[in-house]
Amino acid sequence: VGNELLIGQTLDTNSHWVAWQFNRFGWTVQRVTQLRDSLSALQHGLGEALERRPRMLVTIGGLGPTHDDMTLRGLSLAVRRPLTLNPKALDMVRKKYEKIETPAHLTFHRKKMAMLPRGSEPMANPLGTAPGVLARSSRTTIVSLPGVPKEMKAIFNASIVPILRESSGSQPVEVYLGFVGIVESALAPTLREVQSRFPGLYFKSHPRGLESGVRSLILLHIYTLRKSDPRMINRAVVFLVRRLAGLKSPS
Amino acid sequence: VGNELLIGQTLDTNSHWVAWQFNRFGWTVQRVTQLRDSLSALQHGLGEALERRPRMLVTIGGLGPTHDDMTLRGLSLAVRRPLTLNPKALDMVRKKYEKIETPAHLTFHRKKMAMLPRGSEPMANPLGTAPGVLARSSRTTIVSLPGVPKEMKAIFNASIVPILRESSGSQPVEVYLGFVGIVESALAPTLREVQSRFPGLYFKSHPRGLESGVRSLILLHIYTLRKSDPRMINRAVVFLVRRLAGLKSPS
Repeated sequence: VGNELLIGQTLDTNSHWVAWQFNRFGWTVQRVTQLRDSLSALQHGLGEALERRPRMLVTIGGLGPTHDDMTLRGLSLAVRRPLTLNPKALDMVRKKYEKIETPAHLTFHRKKMAMLPRGSEPMANPLGTAPGVLARSSRTTIVSLPGVPKEMKAIFNASIVPILRESSGSQPVEVYLGFVGIVESALAPTLREVQSRFPGLYFKSHPRGLESGVRSLILLHIYTLRKSDPRMINRAVVFLVRRLAGLKSPS
Repeated sequence: VGNELLIGQTLDTNSHWVAWQFNRFGWTVQRVTQLRDSLSALQHGLGEALERRPRMLVTIGGLGPTHDDMTLRGLSLAVRRPLTLNPKALDMVRKKYEKIETPAHLTFHRKKMAMLPRGSEPMANPLGTAPGVLARSSRTTIVSLPGVPKEMKAIFNASIVPILRESSGSQPVEVYLGFVGIVESALAPTLREVQSRFPGLYFKSHPRGLESGVRSLILLHIYTLRKSDPRMINRAVVFLVRRLAGLKSPS
C-alpha cells in the first residue's frame, strides 16, 4: 500500500521478501497488488482479494499516524467491521511514547494507531510505534504490517513465521540448470514434453542471452509445487539431458 | 506476470520503472498487480483490470516461446478476441531467426510469438525476439511487453513514451522537505490541515528515524497530482514552516 510505489519512487522490496518467506515454508502466493493511498482503492482492492478466499491476506503499509495512513479504515470497510479503540493496542502505543515523554500525550493521531477493526488482535512492533494487526474474515487470516521494512520484518518473523511453519507443507525442492548454445524456442518442445511427463514439477526457463544469437544461455528453474517426491527432480533432469543430447537442429 | 516474482525469486523492478515513466509524463498509475503463469490467473486478473476501464493497461512478461508464456492467451480470453497469426509479427520473428540460420525454421514455438489477439498490432523488439503487442479494448489501450528488462525498456521507449508524451498533462512538480526532531504523530495534525487547505497538492510523510525516539527524521514529499499552479507548492511550504515554528509540544 502506498502512492510512493505507484509513482515509481520506492521499489517494493517488501512484497518480494514476504513472497520469499511464504515460498520458503511451502505456501503459494497467488497475487501481489500495489494499491494507492485512497480509501476507495483500499476498500475495493482488499474486498476483491477476500472474495478470492485465500488462506492468508497480508497488507503492508498505511498503519501510521498521518491522514494518508488508511489501510485499517479500508480493511474495516472491506470486512464490514467498525474501527474501535483496542485496549491492548493502545497500551502498546502508550508504552512507546512513554519513552519520550511522561506522561505520554495520547493525541488523536496517536490513538489512531490503536483503532482496529472490531475482533482483531494487535501484534507488538518491537522496532516502531504502530502495532501490526491480526484479523479473520471467513476462512482468511488477515495480517496488516507497517511499511517500514525493518518493522515489517520484525513483526513478520515474530508473529507470522510461526503460523507459516505450523501450516507448512514440505519445503520446496529446487534445482537450476544452465543451457549454453541452445535457444529458448528450440528448448520449448522438450520443456512441454517434460512438463506433461512430470506434472508435479514446475519448469520455467529464463533466457539470459540472446534468443536469436549464437551466445545463448538459458537458466532453467525446476521445483516442486507441493509436497512431493524430491527424487522426481532427478528423474526429470536425466530425462531432459537425454532428450537434449538427441537434438540435432532446432525442431 | 511470472511465478518468479510470486515465489520471491525475482524482484519486480520492471513495474517500478514503468510506474516512474508514467509519473514522469503526468499520468497516474492506479494499480500494479503481479500474476502467476496460469491461464486462469491471467484471464481473471486482466479482465478485472479492464473492468476498471483505465486509459492504459500494461502487461510485462509471458510473451516468449515456451509453454509457460501465456500472457497473450490470457489477454485473448479477457478481451474475447481469438489469437490469430499476425503477418507483421511473423515477419519480425522470421527476421530475427534469419540471423542465426538460413532459411529460418518457423517452428510451432516460434510462430507462437506471432499469434496475437485479433485486431492488435506488433511492436518491433530491437533487442529480443518476441514482439511487443498493442491492442485496444473499449477505451483502454493495452500494451504487452516482454519481461526481459532491457527488451521491455527498449520497446517502451520507442513505442509507448511517444503516446505518454502526446497525452501527458503537465509534468509533476515536486519537493522534498526534511524535518528533524519532530515525530510523525506530532506532524500529523498540521499535515491534515495543510492537505485540506491545498487540495490540489499531495502530501506524504516518510518516517526515516524512530517515531518514539529522540532522533526522529521525517521526509515529507509534496507534489501536484495534476496540471496545477506550481507556485502552490511554495505557498504550502511557507504555510507548513510557519505552523511548525508555532508548535511548542506535540499536540
